[in-house]
Amino acid sequence: MNAIGVDVGGTKIAAAVVTPHGRILDEVRYPTPQSLETLIENIARAVREVGEGYEAGGVCLAVPGLILGSENKVIFSPNLGAIEGVPLKDELEPRIGLPLTIENDGNAAAWGEFRFGVGSEADHLVFVTLGTGIGGGVITHGVLMRGAQGSGGELGHVTIQEGGPRCACGNYGCLEALASGTAIARRGRERAIENPGSALGSLATRRQILGEDVTRLAREGDAVALSVLEETGRWLGIGLASFVNIFNPEVVAVGGGAMEAGELILKAARREIMDRARPPSRDLAEVQVATLGPKSGVLGAAALARDASSGEYLLGT
Amino acid sequence: MNAIGVDVGGTKIAAAVVTPHGRILDEVRYPTPQSLETLIENIARAVREVGEGYEAGGVCLAVPGLILGSENKVIFSPNLGAIEGVPLKDELEPRIGLPLTIENDGNAAAWGEFRFGVGSEADHLVFVTLGTGIGGGVITHGVLMRGAQGSGGELGHVTIQEGGPRCACGNYGCLEALASGTAIARRGRERAIENPGSALGSLATRRQILGEDVTRLAREGDAVALSVLEETGRWLGIGLASFVNIFNPEVVAVGGGAMEAGELILKAARREIMDRARPPSRDLAEVQVATLGPKSGVLGAAALARDASSGEYLLGT
Repeated sequence: MNAIGVDVGGTKIAAAVVTPHGRILDEVRYPTPQSLETLIENIARAVREVGEGYEAGGVCLAVPGLILGSENKVIFSPNLGAIEGVPLKDELEPRIGLPLTIENDGNAAAWGEFRFGVGSEADHLVFVTLGTGIGGGVITHGVLMRGAQGSGGELGHVTIQEGGPRCACGNYGCLEALASGTAIARRGRERAIENPGSALGSLATRRQILGEDVTRLAREGDAVALSVLEETGRWLGIGLASFVNIFNPEVVAVGGGAMEAGELILKAARREIMDRARPPSRDLAEVQVATLGPKSGVLGAAALARDASSGEYLLGT
Repeated sequence: MNAIGVDVGGTKIAAAVVTPHGRILDEVRYPTPQSLETLIENIARAVREVGEGYEAGGVCLAVPGLILGSENKVIFSPNLGAIEGVPLKDELEPRIGLPLTIENDGNAAAWGEFRFGVGSEADHLVFVTLGTGIGGGVITHGVLMRGAQGSGGELGHVTIQEGGPRCACGNYGCLEALASGTAIARRGRERAIENPGSALGSLATRRQILGEDVTRLAREGDAVALSVLEETGRWLGIGLASFVNIFNPEVVAVGGGAMEAGELILKAARREIMDRARPPSRDLAEVQVATLGPKSGVLGAAALARDASSGEYLLGT
């Protein structure tokens, strides 16, 4: 049966009706408002609107933040503070008339790539997204690794450099602090100052460098911008090598906005994996760009809604 | 039905007949010989001898090394080089007349603690052993996380300090290089030289410091020895904090020889987890000393043999 996936982001709410084979039948978008009441109303409206005229078995909400699964709550969400502590299931189910579950957005996107994208031939998938932060999710033995409370899969918050730069989570030296889109921008600004003669340095005299500037200038051949992406890939690879040793996956998929840079980041990451991870895992794991792009969230959420209601997949407590 | 677990270590082979509830009915030990032919003969003899008079459904061999599950082979084993590349299943089954499987020793011990020890009330368990190296295993959603080739769960080989000390695996800054028994001994020697007036420094003038010396002197109140264990606990905690974020487990169990030091290591580790891991995972995870001691290997292996033959647990490919 069809199901509805909702991706609740910091700026927009996307809802889609999705077939069991991952085809999007219909999709709507609403802005993400500040107030909780309007947010809940917009989510409910998006679900009702997109679901009109379709039969759907359930809804899953992909939300950016730490989940407390037993209470169907988000307990921490830096970009969507309004939903912290709110019993979203209780608030929303009466308004939409369908069973609703809640999932971390990284986990939902990982499940999307596993069911319909780059991991659809794999039983073991590690998925990371390089955006403002680093999110992720893991499928191991065909099971989404949610952990005891639904908070598992926080791949951005592994320490890869003790005493490294402070992370948004409060820890130091997290993968996120060293390889996210934000880290690319920060590194770009630093290198621009050190290299005023480079294209990056020249741009920095006119305005603040963004992550996408680094990628664009690297594509145009600026050596300094290229070195920023290579260094980012090196840090990414240090984290991925650990995941390869831990999970022994067939596929390591990397998505998110920073994957505009694709191989300019991944080449260095693969080299680190070959240097740091162990056989046979390092030789099996294929590092690939995720294929669903920004649709992975709604697709994964819809699949999770269906799998949860049909009991087809064991999704933890 | 009963099953036979075999723990193949660097110095001895232990085989035990184990009931479905984890009771050891009988146990035998043989030395681990150098030559492959004698090793295989000793394993077969141990299994036949311990199994005599009991009905047993299968055998599982816990081996220290990287497994290639599809070929039932150990492809890399620093402490047991003779078995590398040997098709152990094909060699042993005709000699013992029972179905045989092979498992990494860290994974087998984790399964033992999950079924019969400190994790028996949990659905999600992270288990690490601090010995010469650091081994480990993970149970997530009740499933032993073996990965695509049976090489998953290499928890000792996550990078926690980029550019840190070289690890036996060839990488730099692995958890194993910073928090194993070997790391305790190395750190003890370094601190002894820096602090000649301490009990540790005094011992170092007479002979080489071992890991167990550090623990003994710490228990006797030597401040330098205590600081060595605390520093080790800090590094251990950095790794465990990442595992807590990744797996969201109910229990984090620590075993192995270095756990003679118990709380002298774990107290600092818990502090790091509170500082570095994220809620709700960090508040749920209980860090405990593993309870089965050196029996975890045979118990876990026996349980895996039974679970594999009965199909009771999904154990990957």
